[in-house]
Amino acid sequence: MNSFATIILAAGKGTRMKSDLHKVLHPIAGRPMLDHLMASAGELKPAHTVVVVGAGREQLENALGDRARTCLQEPQLGTGHAVQQAQDALAGFSGDVLILYGDVPFVRPATMQSMLDRLHQPDAPAVVVLGFEPDDALQYGRVIADAEGRITKMVEFKDASAEERACTLCNSGLMAARSEDLFDLLARVGNDNAQGEYYLVDIVNVANADGRRSAVVTTDDPAEVAGINSRKELADAERQWQEFRRDEAMADGVSLKAPETVFFSWDTKLGRDVTIEPNVVFGPGVTVADNATIRAFSHLEGASVGEFASVGPYARLRPGTVLEESAKVGNFVEIKNATMGKGAKASHLTYLGDAKIGADANIGAGTITCNYDGYFKHQTVIGERAFIGSNSSLIAPVNIGADAIVAAGSAVSRDVDAGELRMVRAEQLVKPGWADRFHDTMKKKKAARRK
Amino acid sequence: MNSFATIILAAGKGTRMKSDLHKVLHPIAGRPMLDHLMASAGELKPAHTVVVVGAGREQLENALGDRARTCLQEPQLGTGHAVQQAQDALAGFSGDVLILYGDVPFVRPATMQSMLDRLHQPDAPAVVVLGFEPDDALQYGRVIADAEGRITKMVEFKDASAEERACTLCNSGLMAARSEDLFDLLARVGNDNAQGEYYLVDIVNVANADGRRSAVVTTDDPAEVAGINSRKELADAERQWQEFRRDEAMADGVSLKAPETVFFSWDTKLGRDVTIEPNVVFGPGVTVADNATIRAFSHLEGASVGEFASVGPYARLRPGTVLEESAKVGNFVEIKNATMGKGAKASHLTYLGDAKIGADANIGAGTITCNYDGYFKHQTVIGERAFIGSNSSLIAPVNIGADAIVAAGSAVSRDVDAGELRMVRAEQLVKPGWADRFHDTMKKKKAARRK
Amino acid sequence: MNSFATIILAAGKGTRMKSDLHKVLHPIAGRPMLDHLMASAGELKPAHTVVVVGAGREQLENALGDRARTCLQEPQLGTGHAVQQAQDALAGFSGDVLILYGDVPFVRPATMQSMLDRLHQPDAPAVVVLGFEPDDALQYGRVIADAEGRITKMVEFKDASAEERACTLCNSGLMAARSEDLFDLLARVGNDNAQGEYYLVDIVNVANADGRRSAVVTTDDPAEVAGINSRKELADAERQWQEFRRDEAMADGVSLKAPETVFFSWDTKLGRDVTIEPNVVFGPGVTVADNATIRAFSHLEGASVGEFASVGPYARLRPGTVLEESAKVGNFVEIKNATMGKGAKASHLTYLGDAKIGADANIGAGTITCNYDGYFKHQTVIGERAFIGSNSSLIAPVNIGADAIVAAGSAVSRDVDAGELRMVRAEQLVKPGWADRFHDTMKKKKAARRK
Repeated sequence: MNSFATIILAAGKGTRMKSDLHKVLHPIAGRPMLDHLMASAGELKPAHTVVVVGAGREQLENALGDRARTCLQEPQLGTGHAVQQAQDALAGFSGDVLILYGDVPFVRPATMQSMLDRLHQPDAPAVVVLGFEPDDALQYGRVIADAEGRITKMVEFKDASAEERACTLCNSGLMAARSEDLFDLLARVGNDNAQGEYYLVDIVNVANADGRRSAVVTTDDPAEVAGINSRKELADAERQWQEFRRDEAMADGVSLKAPETVFFSWDTKLGRDVTIEPNVVFGPGVTVADNATIRAFSHLEGASVGEFASVGPYARLRPGTVLEESAKVGNFVEIKNATMGKGAKASHLTYLGDAKIGADANIGAGTITCNYDGYFKHQTVIGERAFIGSNSSLIAPVNIGADAIVAAGSAVSRDVDAGELRMVRAEQLVKPGWADRFHDTMKKKKAARRK
Repeated sequence: MNSFATIILAAGKGTRMKSDLHKVLHPIAGRPMLDHLMASAGELKPAHTVVVVGAGREQLENALGDRARTCLQEPQLGTGHAVQQAQDALAGFSGDVLILYGDVPFVRPATMQSMLDRLHQPDAPAVVVLGFEPDDALQYGRVIADAEGRITKMVEFKDASAEERACTLCNSGLMAARSEDLFDLLARVGNDNAQGEYYLVDIVNVANADGRRSAVVTTDDPAEVAGINSRKELADAERQWQEFRRDEAMADGVSLKAPETVFFSWDTKLGRDVTIEPNVVFGPGVTVADNATIRAFSHLEGASVGEFASVGPYARLRPGTVLEESAKVGNFVEIKNATMGKGAKASHLTYLGDAKIGADANIGAGTITCNYDGYFKHQTVIGERAFIGSNSSLIAPVNIGADAIVAAGSAVSRDVDAGELRMVRAEQLVKPGWADRFHDTMKKKKAARRK
Repeated sequence: MNSFATIILAAGKGTRMKSDLHKVLHPIAGRPMLDHLMASAGELKPAHTVVVVGAGREQLENALGDRARTCLQEPQLGTGHAVQQAQDALAGFSGDVLILYGDVPFVRPATMQSMLDRLHQPDAPAVVVLGFEPDDALQYGRVIADAEGRITKMVEFKDASAEERACTLCNSGLMAARSEDLFDLLARVGNDNAQGEYYLVDIVNVANADGRRSAVVTTDDPAEVAGINSRKELADAERQWQEFRRDEAMADGVSLKAPETVFFSWDTKLGRDVTIEPNVVFGPGVTVADNATIRAFSHLEGASVGEFASVGPYARLRPGTVLEESAKVGNFVEIKNATMGKGAKASHLTYLGDAKIGADANIGAGTITCNYDGYFKHQTVIGERAFIGSNSSLIAPVNIGADAIVAAGSAVSRDVDAGELRMVRAEQLVKPGWADRFHDTMKKKKAARRK
């Protein structure tokens, strides 16, 4: 395959998003739409990636880091003008160029590949357009082409004849061209139109007028060229992504009792015979091993769930959580940056942060690792088979030895040895009849207030 | 605009709801359907509102308070008879009358307005009927009218000729009439039909026979005249309401990752660049400012969420919660009648009730304000930058000063000064080897029981 | 009705499920699909139930217990061969035989009945086939029959003429036959086909060739013969089941604000005027009485909820929970094997396990019953009107008397008498200025680390 560069147009203002966040940075499945697109293009290993930016340049450059060069389009005089801004960044590059849109994030690598390949197939067209056939062609621009895909004419809907409108092959806006042809053709595109803009699509007609050839490649999935211009379209794209991923998970042997209530992240990894109950949300960075169960109302981010482990209902796993084989995290339990050893259990109302829990340890209800002193985070280490009584506070840094027992309600501020019992508990103060007298007093008080 | 009165029919038994709650009091988006209707009519400022009631009169009168007069229809002899019951309540009133139905709650003010306006437009009809054109006209009564909307005849489906059935303009039941015409016409409606009832619709035919005119006004949205007669229809109406509201939120600049899992209240107010994760439920009285984030599985009622504040996952905000700018409420945290100052945090497993938390205070995991003594509620005040150690109980009324520290596991029953450390903790009782001996004993006991 | 036996075919490998769990044991609404089918057949009281098993025999036998006989099909040479394996198990039985499929779980009893009845109606056919008319007949085998349902021919799609394909009556695979006919016909079925298998359907053609009669009975609901071969089809079946159950609940007088977010179990029982908010999951064994409210994000299993009781939001009721009239369980509360008396309340962040709570008792936020010592479970008994202060640990076995008060933060290890106050709390250690000095030190430390 020839060396190629991608130019990604991302200078649009995204006004309909009504957002301070740049449109192409809005996430789908937890990943900015621009990253989805760059990951797909990345599978084909482009030699260069240039992103054309306008408003929100700084946001985009921060997000891109060194993954792409940016160039500024200012003022914004149309898509053709936008692509021209990349010319300097590609100076000296003589391969193919693929033109993508930051807000059209789900073009498949295979489709990109077929566009690039077409440049080097019969007729060696100067320009390749990606066409699509939507259910309803609406007011899209039309691609008028012959049976071999040679383009006769690109025509805007408003300028199209009835016959041309009857043609349902539409222009997605995506193009491929050889770099020398591309910038040469662009230089000859005018702005003699109502908006006074330079349109990328016009390079096709210039090429045709010129005797250079152009061709269309048609996707069989119109959904991949859908643009995202509003939060509703963003939500629609999210839904489509999720539906695809859920079906994929089920096909791979995951049970989803109510697929429509489970939300995956772009990078969720799931084993075989994993069961996921209704209402589970996956943030980024989660791996779930074979035969694990994620119960209802659970929320996982940056967590590794081992084989036969059980999570939830109402469990929150935060980044750095590692559940080893058959570990169990129950309801209203939060785990952060902590490892639960094989068979360890934290079943109820617990917070474990910055901790290492040994195998088969039992963490009682209401246990809290006091990992933060207001300035620094500290670690709690709990030995194998240790038993932490309910409502205990483990004041880190602290070590609880293997087989040790912490009595219920203890605030443990010093290490506990293996096999030791630690109890931090005041005397049982007994006041017989006190409650009865209290009730009498308060009832009178309440009655008095009512008067 | 002329002065007008509304008569709202709400005497139906609502048998299909199978409920002890009056049908028109069943809520949609947290608001009784009758209130939705009255709010819409209220935008036009009616001079009088009369609700015709039957069974469940007391429930309705309690719900209405002084917002409307009620009059009783007993026995229930049809819709015409129902409207007649309002005659006394409107004695002396000579304006227009709009007849609505308590179980048809989503008629738009503009539609009501156009009905009232029509009374004073060409021909000045005595009666105006609201017609609609459903996708499937089914067995609805038909409105036979000419091109100018002059009604020739109202006809029940069962009595309609094939030609009349082919007409798809249907009778919604909603009407407008001048008060003098209305009661005069009603007095002349008979009950010579299978049910022996007096039908409101017959006033049109009486008016026509009389030489007075009648006219139809047609809604372009058949959904607004949909009646709610069962819990399923109630759920359908809720779903339509929610879908409309979600789209509106997204258009206004709110990100909804999974719109279908977010449930708004009729009065929810949302700023720009608010992010709402999946599975969030809004009860009444919630305001969310710009750039706030509501994370998954959160439940909010009567709460004000400030700019850049973060709520959830699994946060429950109850009435009287105020989160100031950048405050943070984390998982398994309940807040009630409490203010969190700017940047204050309560990240895990906490209950804050009847409290005032200063800016940048840090409330540790498992903190509980003991605000109730079984008889009265008391307040907890926490100063700026105070640090409440985990698993603490703050026994109200109590004040914790600025920059103070409460040690983990403390039950604080007396005020803590600014800059003070308060610790309520017994000695660490250390019993080396005790746990090992306990394990030995218990293992033997367990083995013995198994025999 | 004649005595009959069912043969349930369950020897398929279920490869597309990608599961170690036998296909027919995968649950729908919390109940294995095989059990749904057996319960339906069970309504007709079969004299014998024989399940033909292959791979996963042990799993199936464990699941079946003594509810059915199993017989092994090994190797697997087709559906006809599978049925033949049941011949020994039915030796001596001379009634009718109904042939069902473990992965076609939702055949209605009435449909089964009509198949069995047909064996004894005009013509007394030797074989009765269950036909269905799908929206799209696709490549299903066709049943060619006359207007009276007498079958002329069973034909596979690939062998069918255009005329036969135009017939849209399809073969579900389900059959009924008299036992003597069945095994006699099966013995004469050959395996002269591409797969070299013995097909059950061929008994119809053998019967016809023989002069014995065969007939078709047609279901009016094609959904009841849908087979489940993948996790996606399993999820689809679950969705259909849930939709049916939600509609049924609403028709019976249950309010579902968002029906699509409520998941019932096969055995959930609901009273009248029960309100269920969005996002509620029912596991098996739940009964909810009239006028109870289940709030959002609740999860119930094996629980009985009394009249006017209130559950959630975020309540988890586990098996053995009994809420008596007007009891209230609030947010982040877990109840297991415990009874809450009339009007008793546990509103926040609580775990009650193995407990008995008296009427009108008030369980404070953060209360935990320490019911487990690592070896055995122990009981907590709380008297009527007792008041358990927040963040208390009740170390079972322990009794708290009526009207008693436990002070906030107490770990109670000995019984509390009626009317007594029990307080377990150390002295308030006051260190003025300590926190200010700590802040100074730590800020310096933090600054030093940054360098």
